[in-house]
Amino acid sequence: MNKIRTAVIGAGYIGVVHIEQLLRLPGVEIAGIVDKNTSLAKSVAARYGIPKVYGDAGEALLDDSVDVIHNCTPNNLHFEINRHAIESGKEVFSEKPLALTVAESGELVRLAEKHNTVTGIGFCYRYYPVVQEAAARIKRGDIGEVYNIMGNYFQDWLLYDTDYSWRLDSRMAGASNILSDLGSHWCDLAQFMSGLEIEEVIADTRTTLPIRKRPKTGETLTFGKAGNIEFEDVPITLDEYGSMLIKFKGGARGTFTTSQLAAGRKCNIDIQIYGSRGSIAWNHERPAELWIGRRDEANQTFFESPLLQTEETRKYAKLPSGHPMGYMDATLNLFSDFYAAVYAKREGLTITNSSPDFAAGHAEMRVLEAAIKSRDTGAWIKVRHSG
Amino acid sequence: MNKIRTAVIGAGYIGVVHIEQLLRLPGVEIAGIVDKNTSLAKSVAARYGIPKVYGDAGEALLDDSVDVIHNCTPNNLHFEINRHAIESGKEVFSEKPLALTVAESGELVRLAEKHNTVTGIGFCYRYYPVVQEAAARIKRGDIGEVYNIMGNYFQDWLLYDTDYSWRLDSRMAGASNILSDLGSHWCDLAQFMSGLEIEEVIADTRTTLPIRKRPKTGETLTFGKAGNIEFEDVPITLDEYGSMLIKFKGGARGTFTTSQLAAGRKCNIDIQIYGSRGSIAWNHERPAELWIGRRDEANQTFFESPLLQTEETRKYAKLPSGHPMGYMDATLNLFSDFYAAVYAKREGLTITNSSPDFAAGHAEMRVLEAAIKSRDTGAWIKVRHSG
Amino acid sequence: MNKIRTAVIGAGYIGVVHIEQLLRLPGVEIAGIVDKNTSLAKSVAARYGIPKVYGDAGEALLDDSVDVIHNCTPNNLHFEINRHAIESGKEVFSEKPLALTVAESGELVRLAEKHNTVTGIGFCYRYYPVVQEAAARIKRGDIGEVYNIMGNYFQDWLLYDTDYSWRLDSRMAGASNILSDLGSHWCDLAQFMSGLEIEEVIADTRTTLPIRKRPKTGETLTFGKAGNIEFEDVPITLDEYGSMLIKFKGGARGTFTTSQLAAGRKCNIDIQIYGSRGSIAWNHERPAELWIGRRDEANQTFFESPLLQTEETRKYAKLPSGHPMGYMDATLNLFSDFYAAVYAKREGLTITNSSPDFAAGHAEMRVLEAAIKSRDTGAWIKVRHSG
Amino acid sequence: MNKIRTAVIGAGYIGVVHIEQLLRLPGVEIAGIVDKNTSLAKSVAARYGIPKVYGDAGEALLDDSVDVIHNCTPNNLHFEINRHAIESGKEVFSEKPLALTVAESGELVRLAEKHNTVTGIGFCYRYYPVVQEAAARIKRGDIGEVYNIMGNYFQDWLLYDTDYSWRLDSRMAGASNILSDLGSHWCDLAQFMSGLEIEEVIADTRTTLPIRKRPKTGETLTFGKAGNIEFEDVPITLDEYGSMLIKFKGGARGTFTTSQLAAGRKCNIDIQIYGSRGSIAWNHERPAELWIGRRDEANQTFFESPLLQTEETRKYAKLPSGHPMGYMDATLNLFSDFYAAVYAKREGLTITNSSPDFAAGHAEMRVLEAAIKSRDTGAWIKVRHSG
Repeated sequence: MNKIRTAVIGAGYIGVVHIEQLLRLPGVEIAGIVDKNTSLAKSVAARYGIPKVYGDAGEALLDDSVDVIHNCTPNNLHFEINRHAIESGKEVFSEKPLALTVAESGELVRLAEKHNTVTGIGFCYRYYPVVQEAAARIKRGDIGEVYNIMGNYFQDWLLYDTDYSWRLDSRMAGASNILSDLGSHWCDLAQFMSGLEIEEVIADTRTTLPIRKRPKTGETLTFGKAGNIEFEDVPITLDEYGSMLIKFKGGARGTFTTSQLAAGRKCNIDIQIYGSRGSIAWNHERPAELWIGRRDEANQTFFESPLLQTEETRKYAKLPSGHPMGYMDATLNLFSDFYAAVYAKREGLTITNSSPDFAAGHAEMRVLEAAIKSRDTGAWIKVRHSG
Repeated sequence: MNKIRTAVIGAGYIGVVHIEQLLRLPGVEIAGIVDKNTSLAKSVAARYGIPKVYGDAGEALLDDSVDVIHNCTPNNLHFEINRHAIESGKEVFSEKPLALTVAESGELVRLAEKHNTVTGIGFCYRYYPVVQEAAARIKRGDIGEVYNIMGNYFQDWLLYDTDYSWRLDSRMAGASNILSDLGSHWCDLAQFMSGLEIEEVIADTRTTLPIRKRPKTGETLTFGKAGNIEFEDVPITLDEYGSMLIKFKGGARGTFTTSQLAAGRKCNIDIQIYGSRGSIAWNHERPAELWIGRRDEANQTFFESPLLQTEETRKYAKLPSGHPMGYMDATLNLFSDFYAAVYAKREGLTITNSSPDFAAGHAEMRVLEAAIKSRDTGAWIKVRHSG
Repeated sequence: MNKIRTAVIGAGYIGVVHIEQLLRLPGVEIAGIVDKNTSLAKSVAARYGIPKVYGDAGEALLDDSVDVIHNCTPNNLHFEINRHAIESGKEVFSEKPLALTVAESGELVRLAEKHNTVTGIGFCYRYYPVVQEAAARIKRGDIGEVYNIMGNYFQDWLLYDTDYSWRLDSRMAGASNILSDLGSHWCDLAQFMSGLEIEEVIADTRTTLPIRKRPKTGETLTFGKAGNIEFEDVPITLDEYGSMLIKFKGGARGTFTTSQLAAGRKCNIDIQIYGSRGSIAWNHERPAELWIGRRDEANQTFFESPLLQTEETRKYAKLPSGHPMGYMDATLNLFSDFYAAVYAKREGLTITNSSPDFAAGHAEMRVLEAAIKSRDTGAWIKVRHSG
Repeated sequence: MNKIRTAVIGAGYIGVVHIEQLLRLPGVEIAGIVDKNTSLAKSVAARYGIPKVYGDAGEALLDDSVDVIHNCTPNNLHFEINRHAIESGKEVFSEKPLALTVAESGELVRLAEKHNTVTGIGFCYRYYPVVQEAAARIKRGDIGEVYNIMGNYFQDWLLYDTDYSWRLDSRMAGASNILSDLGSHWCDLAQFMSGLEIEEVIADTRTTLPIRKRPKTGETLTFGKAGNIEFEDVPITLDEYGSMLIKFKGGARGTFTTSQLAAGRKCNIDIQIYGSRGSIAWNHERPAELWIGRRDEANQTFFESPLLQTEETRKYAKLPSGHPMGYMDATLNLFSDFYAAVYAKREGLTITNSSPDFAAGHAEMRVLEAAIKSRDTGAWIKVRHSG
């Protein structure tokens, strides 16, 4: 069987995460790589034995031997590359957010439908085995009607004013840093796990540190450590703190808090879902565990397990019970589902894309739009469901 | 030395908690007890060797041999008894809320000042040794400037529609059940631990179960289990779910979620305080521990300890490190501080009341007022700081 | 009803713990107190309103108005005072160990039987509500046949050579410090919770620090902090580390480790009981929780609760679910059971002493004897079941 | 650069784990695979795109294009294949135990030296980033002199008598199941993390279930679930429970407990190392965390991190802080170190094999030998350090 051929656009942190997981898919080969930083692209290609370094993204899109594009560029490039990739007849896996505006993400959804594109988006946290398990259990009614959802997404890599990132620059990151970067992940989790749509929100954000020091030469890498370098003061307009009250369709309520200034929380995603018959909670610091709350019995801690999970989620728990999976394995699960749809399409089979697609990415853009409007007006704002 | 003589008004769950801790104060004796349910009062008196059962609260207030009143009645009786107790020249320890309205609680503060009354209020959670420790550390600058506070107060004893309580009846509980009962505790903790005042809020509440089944005879006790009894449907107007976005004076932000429908959370109070140099978090399920978050070093778990706590809080950690204290011990700490002020007054010494007083209770009433107004209008509301 | 009158022998740390819990028993009054350090005795008496300070233990034993003796002296005085108290017709509650040798503890059991004495011993850890719950569940078969028990008792207050205690002096503490002080607690827990008798052991002990520095004047208090004082070198012969392999009657196996040099473990008692159908574990750092292990389902965390515990143990869970109890409350539970037997005897009722009695204390002495012999011979030694 | 060519012997559970991680090493290609179950071998080859299925192990060893052999067969085949592989001039990575006897494992060490073979053994748990970190910290003196080590390795997949495995058959597994399978991992961890050699032991083992039911056709897979099949009774002689008291060189003591009947513990490895200045503990259920115990300060929880780990271990933490790694990533770390040595040899560079080699495997065989002898004699046995 011929392998699926994939090109990766962007050789930064997230691009390398993609490459490392693509290596684990026996049916996929990495055809080539692109980065505006050519020497970075070359060194990544050499390290991973990738045969081709394209001159630019356009060249990759024109390469007829390429089946799939992985879009691992900064936010402001997502839309254009996604659009061209669809129009070039490639299948597309994009990092989130899909685009900078709802208009753009909506257009991508429409285009992908028109071109029958298999699309995927990097909502990787869905793919821890017990997150899938939680969603399956809630769907089958284990906790009854969902009453409320509470959670947070906390990091601390922007705590000091010497921590600079392109994510704080509105030209590259859009109207909000934190709600777009972390908020989109959490809202996707909340909607995916509960099966409920976010209907109305009121949000608050804060730019806690309005001046930051940016390295004069080069750029601070996400999660990287600044060395002994010269800085210049940069006024910051984008937020590193955000919060939301949420109303879900059907009446359930939610609260969400997010910050990149939360000392000691490296990548702490917490989601607690309370229902009429029980509760389920998950925290990314102990990603193999679900907490299951009960009123009249002892609470439970459920560990990921190919034996104890429900039929439909057990394929995501690939190791014997007690052998914990990690972030990379979750990403591999995500890619496996996406590529299953790509294979199916190639083989002319019915395409079932279980992975989050561009519609899921667009859904988060619409929530983001309402959040920003509510922040700006101080009032509850309904999420638009058309457009 | 003559003992301080105390009368307890209300022989229900919380009245008994008070009595049991008063027994542990060697300088205090329980002079008498009152309850509208006289047989309950009598049986409690017999069980604890309390010499007198008063006919009604007024009788206790007229008893010249009584120095201190503990007001353990339902919310709607708090104001009247507190007022009479102050005017009768007693020192007064009241359960929260102080009253049903800000006007009433404000009047109590003014009256107590006028009569030079030593006042106390049942914000017991402050008195776990490590909660005091957290407040002391934040005050001395351990975590720098506070950036945000997140937390919740979850219980599950109202999960089913067969769980009925007077707390859901607005005639007895006021304009909100959950924000008054649980919200006041959490907001007090947030303000006490951070040293910051709540300035503005937007709140949401929900009456998730609008019809409940009330036992036809008698009453469901708080935390009690309903037996095999007949019920009648009762329409419910008060909430059992609430949430708030908060702005603190100086710019810090907050989020708070509370529910009495949170299956598996029996009395889960969580408070996480993030600052410019570090973080501190506490959870009532493991009340002897503080989590201390740090950006560039390992996080810490600090256990209550008479050796390791700071000078001013170590008196609250009364057992050797590793021997955990509990809820009753926290309540005893609260009473110890209150009675230290009562003693000081009797001995003509300078009165330093470290315990939360009626002013603290009034402060929570003002937050509650703003929360309810914001819920009703869907807009941010500033907390009134006069009146 | 006349109160039971109790005299406390020993006003050190553990004596004060006893006094503070006796205050909480409405049917008991503390008649008097003794300590060889008279000024300590006097100050404790003043603090707690205790009417009498006896000149010595003998005087207390001769006081006809005294019903019960609490023996809170160092180990080497336990036997004599317990014996005299029994012979004086008092009921006796003794701190552990009962005596320094099996011969002595055996004699106490025989004497108590002869005099029909109500006896108690300070195995307080049994009395956390969920420890009782674990014992009840294992008894009714929840985890099937017990296969093995693993655990430890770790403290760190003797970590440095500047930490000196009388417990390291064989004249006061007997043939082993750690096995007697901490080992006896753990072995009692293991036998109580599992319902199994220890039949054979092989033990190892170590005196890790053979020279310690003792304060020249006065004495280091248990768990106390040494100030800026002069020291003298003292050779140490007693152990601060011990371990055991265990065979229980019926075939179950055990392992136990104990140390007072375990940095960061203040009073960490861990016990894990594995059976043919499930497991139960408890750790003193989170004393309100049981871990319940299951093969084919999620594990559970059971919290102490007056609603969810089994019928016979729920009386020990005195607070609403979610309001944690502490070490003092456990001690109060222990005293409550002991005094229930004292009352019953005085009222001429059938005496059911649910609390651990001198027979339980003697049982631990016999295990200790075998452990020391096995350590000295390097061989498995059977526990004597007569004598 | 030509890739290293590897053949995998054994296509069962552990063989597939090896294959999946080899895919992630860009410099390695899987040349072929063997299994006595040819149809299994073929299906695995197809799934992972492996070009060749050898007829038997000998054929793979004769294939000159193969550089490295991964020995993933049952215990009883380890010795022969390892020996032939060395003699055929291959580099060898073997699953543990190296062989069934000390004589055999000693011979392998001598042969590997003679042939200058790069060897590796599957002690994968060493390769969680924080396990490496613990070893590095202890080596540099963070916790001072090691006083004692306590731990366990618990699983539950043999709990019921319907759980059958070849590991319980002495012809395939040697003189002990549990000490060889789980004990070898834990003893390796203890020696690796502490830097101390095990000098003397006394062990106990138990065959708790002397009769088990074996499926009449086929075989139960490790960690697999038995379907609705016919069974036959099989007498079992090998243990599923074991324990040891340990004396390390220099005086430190140890205790170790292991069981495959521990309900609820899927793969629970716990190791606690206590020293003169602090403590370090690790548990496989939360593999990204170290617990760091301290006497006079708060304890710490250290998370794996490429920023916060020490210089020499940070290469094992391949993801940004807060993105947890899993069991597969640990295995990849192990293979990376092994293959770094293979590359170095091929390039004629100095070979530094940081991964555990056959000498490490032999060291565990010698501990195992002493453990079994001590179990059989009931006496302390010294570990042989020659032969």
